[in-house]
Amino acid sequence: MAVQTKATIASFGGKLLKLTHNASTTNCEMGFNLYLPSQANQQKVPLLIYLGGLTCTGDNGAQKGFFQHKASEKGIAVLYPDTSPRGLDIQGESDSYDFGTGAGFYIDATKSPWDKGYKMYSYITSELPETVFDNFQQIDSERVSIFGHSMGGHGALTLFLKNPGKYKSVSAYAPIANPSKCPWGEKAFSGYLNDKSEWADHDATELVKKWKGGPLDILIDVGTADNFYHEKQLLPEKFQQAAAENGQGGGVRIRFQEGYDHSYFTMATFADDHVGHAARYLFSS
Amino acid sequence: MAVQTKATIASFGGKLLKLTHNASTTNCEMGFNLYLPSQANQQKVPLLIYLGGLTCTGDNGAQKGFFQHKASEKGIAVLYPDTSPRGLDIQGESDSYDFGTGAGFYIDATKSPWDKGYKMYSYITSELPETVFDNFQQIDSERVSIFGHSMGGHGALTLFLKNPGKYKSVSAYAPIANPSKCPWGEKAFSGYLNDKSEWADHDATELVKKWKGGPLDILIDVGTADNFYHEKQLLPEKFQQAAAENGQGGGVRIRFQEGYDHSYFTMATFADDHVGHAARYLFSS
Repeated sequence: MAVQTKATIASFGGKLLKLTHNASTTNCEMGFNLYLPSQANQQKVPLLIYLGGLTCTGDNGAQKGFFQHKASEKGIAVLYPDTSPRGLDIQGESDSYDFGTGAGFYIDATKSPWDKGYKMYSYITSELPETVFDNFQQIDSERVSIFGHSMGGHGALTLFLKNPGKYKSVSAYAPIANPSKCPWGEKAFSGYLNDKSEWADHDATELVKKWKGGPLDILIDVGTADNFYHEKQLLPEKFQQAAAENGQGGGVRIRFQEGYDHSYFTMATFADDHVGHAARYLFSS
Repeated sequence: MAVQTKATIASFGGKLLKLTHNASTTNCEMGFNLYLPSQANQQKVPLLIYLGGLTCTGDNGAQKGFFQHKASEKGIAVLYPDTSPRGLDIQGESDSYDFGTGAGFYIDATKSPWDKGYKMYSYITSELPETVFDNFQQIDSERVSIFGHSMGGHGALTLFLKNPGKYKSVSAYAPIANPSKCPWGEKAFSGYLNDKSEWADHDATELVKKWKGGPLDILIDVGTADNFYHEKQLLPEKFQQAAAENGQGGGVRIRFQEGYDHSYFTMATFADDHVGHAARYLFSS
């Protein structure tokens, strides 16, 4: 569970740590970033996990998301994991931007050879947070929230819905909200999973239909100029509709942001809202 | 004076425009970014020019500086120029990170072959702003401030000091404040300028000794973990001392920021302070 510190960077009164560790779930060394706000010097702070989108590493959100702005004010640690294993030398691993390297989809692969290390579900829900809690005692393992962008929005929604009570809150930017029904998700699920019967268990729209964990309060931002929204890769309306069918329609708040696209400029603009959403749950008694 | 719009990106309620134009001073097509806050839809807004450091383009500050956060609140347009001409095919132009491409140093070269297009002083003080004012009538040409980072901090200080009254305010992050006396500046000035007698006219520490333009109020942030500060590339104390010799010591406010480095994480952290500093002058009557 040892971590190596590659860099310590001052940011908004706290510290951004660039870290690596040898992960057994993913079968390789994994890099990640951890932001510790100044409050962590005096007291236990809660943790907000940010899951990145296709092609990203833990650096993109840390550099361009501006989540540290509000997290530093509220006293929240932010964890920026990578989006896949790296360098497993699986044939075809780096052939496309939307499968393999940089595209782990936050699921545990069941199909060979991907099952060798593409276990991002286990990595994000278990191994990485346990490593963080072990090494950073100032982080409160009982107060964890999650959010993400695009593929990471899919990850945040599904991890939240599959683990009632594990995360205090969830929000997403432009999530792939119904992956069984869009090209990105179909490619990933058919590539990583042995059987189509496994898909529903990793699809937020299917999961929310079966949610029994109490009233939902999910914040989702989607830009009206997001080309992937128009290409029907995201399908947030399907998620909304499925929640409504389960009597949770009011628990899914989708904000269509006029003129905003799929980029980090959108995330930075609404960063305070998403971190603030998490803060309301991380600091409620 | 025509500009081409390559992209329009929503950011903090306004628009970030990615633009190009054929510049006569630099003898090539130049790219730049311009942030228009939402207030520009209703009224004239002032302009804040951000000058980037070595190796940067107009993208770095726009993506990682977080300047739009406060600029959108105050109603300030932000101009992000490039840091040199590109593609002039001068021998050796791309051989090093600190000379030639990405390293124009905001001076007009007098030495051949660099005098062919390395005219960043004229470009930034005249051609680019005139192009912007021509094409964006909602920007008020009478209210302009300037700031920058590292090489761009040198640029901001020297352009301000050489043109009393042209800019309403100036501030800098980690400026190369005495380039005649540091390796970066010596390399650039000896490369671009024919004679050492020309150096003082582009050195903020020399210029501030001769300043006659009224009380100064210059904000400078330097991180105590900035390796270039420790390597004596920046020399902010020399600038402070020179200002004091001219009776302006109180007009140079250097904040040594504990633990901060030379990166954009430092800029983002103090972005609100620098944009706020400009706002006080841009909106004073």
